[in-house]
Amino acid sequence: MLENKFPGKDITIDDIKTKFPLVAKNNPNHFSKFKVNGVEFGGKKIPIFAGPNMVESKELILDCAKNIKKIGGHFLRGGAFKPLTFPYRSKKYTETREEGIKWLKNAKLKTDLPVVTEIMEERYLELICKTADILQIGSRNMQNYPLITACAKTKKPILLKRHYGASLRDWLGAAEYILCEGNNKVILCERGVSVPHTHRNTSRFLLDLQVVPAAKEITHLPIAVDPSHATFWRPWVEPMTLAAIASGADAIMLEVHPDPENSAVDPLQPINFKAFKNLMNKMDKVAKILGRTVK
Amino acid sequence: MLENKFPGKDITIDDIKTKFPLVAKNNPNHFSKFKVNGVEFGGKKIPIFAGPNMVESKELILDCAKNIKKIGGHFLRGGAFKPLTFPYRSKKYTETREEGIKWLKNAKLKTDLPVVTEIMEERYLELICKTADILQIGSRNMQNYPLITACAKTKKPILLKRHYGASLRDWLGAAEYILCEGNNKVILCERGVSVPHTHRNTSRFLLDLQVVPAAKEITHLPIAVDPSHATFWRPWVEPMTLAAIASGADAIMLEVHPDPENSAVDPLQPINFKAFKNLMNKMDKVAKILGRTVK
Amino acid sequence: MLENKFPGKDITIDDIKTKFPLVAKNNPNHFSKFKVNGVEFGGKKIPIFAGPNMVESKELILDCAKNIKKIGGHFLRGGAFKPLTFPYRSKKYTETREEGIKWLKNAKLKTDLPVVTEIMEERYLELICKTADILQIGSRNMQNYPLITACAKTKKPILLKRHYGASLRDWLGAAEYILCEGNNKVILCERGVSVPHTHRNTSRFLLDLQVVPAAKEITHLPIAVDPSHATFWRPWVEPMTLAAIASGADAIMLEVHPDPENSAVDPLQPINFKAFKNLMNKMDKVAKILGRTVK
Amino acid sequence: MLENKFPGKDITIDDIKTKFPLVAKNNPNHFSKFKVNGVEFGGKKIPIFAGPNMVESKELILDCAKNIKKIGGHFLRGGAFKPLTFPYRSKKYTETREEGIKWLKNAKLKTDLPVVTEIMEERYLELICKTADILQIGSRNMQNYPLITACAKTKKPILLKRHYGASLRDWLGAAEYILCEGNNKVILCERGVSVPHTHRNTSRFLLDLQVVPAAKEITHLPIAVDPSHATFWRPWVEPMTLAAIASGADAIMLEVHPDPENSAVDPLQPINFKAFKNLMNKMDKVAKILGRTVK
Repeated sequence: MLENKFPGKDITIDDIKTKFPLVAKNNPNHFSKFKVNGVEFGGKKIPIFAGPNMVESKELILDCAKNIKKIGGHFLRGGAFKPLTFPYRSKKYTETREEGIKWLKNAKLKTDLPVVTEIMEERYLELICKTADILQIGSRNMQNYPLITACAKTKKPILLKRHYGASLRDWLGAAEYILCEGNNKVILCERGVSVPHTHRNTSRFLLDLQVVPAAKEITHLPIAVDPSHATFWRPWVEPMTLAAIASGADAIMLEVHPDPENSAVDPLQPINFKAFKNLMNKMDKVAKILGRTVK
Repeated sequence: MLENKFPGKDITIDDIKTKFPLVAKNNPNHFSKFKVNGVEFGGKKIPIFAGPNMVESKELILDCAKNIKKIGGHFLRGGAFKPLTFPYRSKKYTETREEGIKWLKNAKLKTDLPVVTEIMEERYLELICKTADILQIGSRNMQNYPLITACAKTKKPILLKRHYGASLRDWLGAAEYILCEGNNKVILCERGVSVPHTHRNTSRFLLDLQVVPAAKEITHLPIAVDPSHATFWRPWVEPMTLAAIASGADAIMLEVHPDPENSAVDPLQPINFKAFKNLMNKMDKVAKILGRTVK
Repeated sequence: MLENKFPGKDITIDDIKTKFPLVAKNNPNHFSKFKVNGVEFGGKKIPIFAGPNMVESKELILDCAKNIKKIGGHFLRGGAFKPLTFPYRSKKYTETREEGIKWLKNAKLKTDLPVVTEIMEERYLELICKTADILQIGSRNMQNYPLITACAKTKKPILLKRHYGASLRDWLGAAEYILCEGNNKVILCERGVSVPHTHRNTSRFLLDLQVVPAAKEITHLPIAVDPSHATFWRPWVEPMTLAAIASGADAIMLEVHPDPENSAVDPLQPINFKAFKNLMNKMDKVAKILGRTVK
Repeated sequence: MLENKFPGKDITIDDIKTKFPLVAKNNPNHFSKFKVNGVEFGGKKIPIFAGPNMVESKELILDCAKNIKKIGGHFLRGGAFKPLTFPYRSKKYTETREEGIKWLKNAKLKTDLPVVTEIMEERYLELICKTADILQIGSRNMQNYPLITACAKTKKPILLKRHYGASLRDWLGAAEYILCEGNNKVILCERGVSVPHTHRNTSRFLLDLQVVPAAKEITHLPIAVDPSHATFWRPWVEPMTLAAIASGADAIMLEVHPDPENSAVDPLQPINFKAFKNLMNKMDKVAKILGRTVK
């Protein structure tokens, strides 16, 4: 019967073999680990991405880089191209764009901390590739196949954020678009999904940690978790970060800001350097129980 | 308190006035209607978009155009650029791309039926604009702001499909990106949202008809409904189409194919010409109860 | 493989045959219609349930009954046992319980309008059965099997509201509990489901009209729709009611109150008598297009 | 404006103070801990509930009790009253009801392990209270207020499972029904919620760990997590259990069975004694990082 060909919402073993052969676990070209600037993904070590939501200024991003490096973070994160849900900018919130990328480069050069930053348009690919060690595909662009294909072709490692409405099947399909260009360096990143109930009127997403063991069951790709964006609420970041490590996450992305309440964007979610340092210690302890390490 | 600035998931009156001023109902530049190739949107008439999911061949699309024209449809729909969830093509399913656009143009010239087709990449904008009367932004690209801004600048009317995980707030924010470029000709299009339960193992979305009165309460933009894609199941297309009209939809998009079961893509959802003709009659009758008309 | 025995979230043909044999369409004991007080369900006529959320006073419910009867409604609805989400009563909101049931009986005797009212506890079954023509199982009790079994045994017709988180499979399973007691008079009632996005900060549910054709495809049970409770917003009641009729609903339940803004509970959702009369006319017109009738 | 009185889907500080005063954190009668059979809830120790889904036989439940006791579990769990989603029993699956309760009592007497078991009907309250140390309200009955009120009056501690579609607000409202009867011994229990995507075709729920910090922010009630039922998939139980501990859970409920694949019900989810022992050790290590303990 015709309809039996449509197995429904959830990924199946048959799907994986025929439609997602390269992301599939145990495929002939299966790899288990890869390195970015000497930091291994998919191995014993759990790399930590930390930094502000937005590259607000040259000073701020340098300050972040120095402190994150000192505390032991492995990658500096920060966005320069970050449009809002509506097209207008506020007095406080302005994308820093090309200039932001320069400031990020300066911070990288001064601290030797590798950088991950979001790419929103192919026209900025060359510019961003000169600074970024990992290209971040934001959740809104998870299925923007022309953009992810262009990124894949640069052979730069790619951090592929999950769309807030995407199934695991949709997400792995997008990853397959990258791998089929010959680029195997893909890190999946869970950042919260839309659900009927989110517990606070400030929150919009639920961190889906069940997707961590679910993904690891069928794909060899490492999976990162971003608890800051998902919870949108500072007090929940620590418990959900530790839970992410315990669930088996291969990397963690955190918003860290010197003065969280005055962050130019989403001030309810970043943690400060002191909280980050404290959290690094706790993450490392949880990781060790699983035979892994953060530091 | 800082957190009071974050009003949560749902759009509010305050949001609309400050962040979505151009899409807001009763704003100073409020317009109520606009025409595309002589067909009015937002008026008494409810335009019908019909055609195959994909422009499979020159003959098929011409056959569709002739029949849809004869039956009384107002626009020919059909995709030439249509990537799947994964990057591989099947023997049956191949995007027809530039050639498909040519076939669409041929069908348009032969029948004088205006055309709506999806644009996935800015690089094809010039090509597609030569054929398309309305540019369709697919649900995956709803928040691809560079793409929708480039489309907006052409001044072509735009059909903005809702992402399957998007709130009304996200969706209207994307529309505001178009209007702030000076392009007022935007048609919203509901096509099913991801929900916990979808009733059949072949179905993945739920048609959200409550969004029709919800949108009409706060925006002056016309709202279309696509029951074919949402239901993914032929027997449900007729009842949900009539329900869409009854809920106040301003336009309807339908998948119509001469031989639905042998459609190159999604064969469970298209209806044939005969069913389309029958449905046109019923839609017209429901529309008339609301003081509107389809034919 | 063991896991193949668990077909997932959605009801399947195999499920229906083996686990839900009595609710299944075309089963050997399939019936298509049944009558309650002379009003047929599952036939050409679409019965309308109307009345206040709560039986607030003897006068109010009598006033409602008289007006609803005059306008052409077929059943008087009203709750006497209606606990809130938390255990406290407000000055305005108090359950009227045994007294409310008496007032309902008085209204029924004076107008000859049959009555549907909710049963929350087995201990009130005898009392309520003396007045009610149809027993309503509220959404919170949809899977309270001891209660629904006790109700089933009385042989009274049962209106089974869907839980806001229930799949079609869960819902039909609950209906099967009634039919297996030898009681075939079950009316399913959709009243809104929890979803990620609901469009207004006052609203909590989305009316699922796709479940109407979905249910009719696999079960012979008539399906009612309650747009008042689902939308929780007066201006959306009319469009969603007409959409419900157009989608194939077999009955409609509406909150009607002489002074909606001063309703003791949920004042944003009831419509007044004038709006009800107007809506009856429109419903009848939509029904006629489907070969059915409301009046 | 009338509609401002309806603050929407999520619980607010104002809600808590006025509508949920007894479950609210820092209320005048706030308590932080309580003991059941010498085991403290809400303190440093994290109690573990373990046992089979169903009390299948006298031997099986005694075997479970002995092994769980030896390994260090604090409570024996097991259901005797467990109706399925549909009313029929299979050859393998039969509720053991009164007899099951007797077998549970025997296991308790032989091992001195306190017992938690589900109560579905008030008529069995006296019987079950003679054996149970904690009464479990199942998710289907979370808003069955007459049942939970009757249970509350016995002064027995109550484990209140969250409905799979319930918001935190709905859930705390149900808990308030218990506390307002003068019974403060309530343990909340998260067991998975319905969401758009669940990753496997066998799974139906997503474990919501974000609700753990969310609940602890506004209520003083301890919160347990049941990863077995939520994941419905053995390989995910360990990672999600450790994640639950890391997120701050105050208790854990696990399905443990001597021969999981031959479990009479839900054979995909229980773990065996060996896996349970291994998990106890890991849970204890994670708990210690948070200054707590399992053993």
